[in-house]
Amino acid sequence: MEKLKAKIRDVNDFPSPGIVFKDITPLVQDPILLRECVAALIQPYKGKAITAVAGMEARGFIFGSLAAWELGVGFIPLRKPGKLPYDVQRIDYDLEYGSAALEAHIDAIKAGDKILVIDDVLATGGTARASCELIQNLGGEVVACAFVMELGFLHGRDVLAPYPIHTLISY
Amino acid sequence: MEKLKAKIRDVNDFPSPGIVFKDITPLVQDPILLRECVAALIQPYKGKAITAVAGMEARGFIFGSLAAWELGVGFIPLRKPGKLPYDVQRIDYDLEYGSAALEAHIDAIKAGDKILVIDDVLATGGTARASCELIQNLGGEVVACAFVMELGFLHGRDVLAPYPIHTLISY
Repeated sequence: MEKLKAKIRDVNDFPSPGIVFKDITPLVQDPILLRECVAALIQPYKGKAITAVAGMEARGFIFGSLAAWELGVGFIPLRKPGKLPYDVQRIDYDLEYGSAALEAHIDAIKAGDKILVIDDVLATGGTARASCELIQNLGGEVVACAFVMELGFLHGRDVLAPYPIHTLISY
Repeated sequence: MEKLKAKIRDVNDFPSPGIVFKDITPLVQDPILLRECVAALIQPYKGKAITAVAGMEARGFIFGSLAAWELGVGFIPLRKPGKLPYDVQRIDYDLEYGSAALEAHIDAIKAGDKILVIDDVLATGGTARASCELIQNLGGEVVACAFVMELGFLHGRDVLAPYPIHTLISY
């Protein structure tokens, strides 16, 4: 996965001073490497009867929809409040500074659905954990959370501990 | 494309009273129909030397990344201000009420690139027009704009007139 790392760009002081942001846009602009990346992301879940992939707004829409496509299942967008038009279930959660919320359509997940959660990066784990709880609140089973990369120093794994985690590269 | 229409849900009074919102989430949750939809979206551009697909945040990330995947080219996310971490080019544009802006990374598009612009819906055409101008300002050529659906009564075609337009269904 060194090739993958080479395509993730460090941007200093984004979104705020002292933060080194991992920019995935060079990766999504490289169709060959992106194909390898998505293949590796879904590899453990082939033949595992996944019924849908859920992805978080907005970068999770890119990797999530591609993962769903390759697994041959539907894609469920998890969105920031007020964006989904139909009846939603909402989950509020705490961030390091402040709070946030996610919504899913109430008919997006049925009891017993086996969901793979996809995002580009596992950071503090707050958004991923909320996504998993939202899916469970709708009756779905979270088979695993898969991320292109993991920022190990933020200990998101601890927050996501109840759920199986798959990451391709870590920092 | 009647099958496609059947999977796009009308949601009344969203985002505001009197508006009938066209909800594409039932479509993206149907992997077979989504495959037909994306195939039809890119069909005119196969063999046309497209170098990348650009898609607008956030629903355009779903259809745009799948279109790029199927064409075997990279995906360029066009984002709301402050979301892209690296150096950006920005375009401001007017909406019916107020204004908006889009950004692209300055190294996302090179002179001579042939770009296909993808979004779920052509409404007033303001965002699509701004996207095309942003791509041109970076030196790219907009080969066409392709949309899953078109809200004909909003006359977005007139706004987008300089660019070839491809839509699958219209209302």
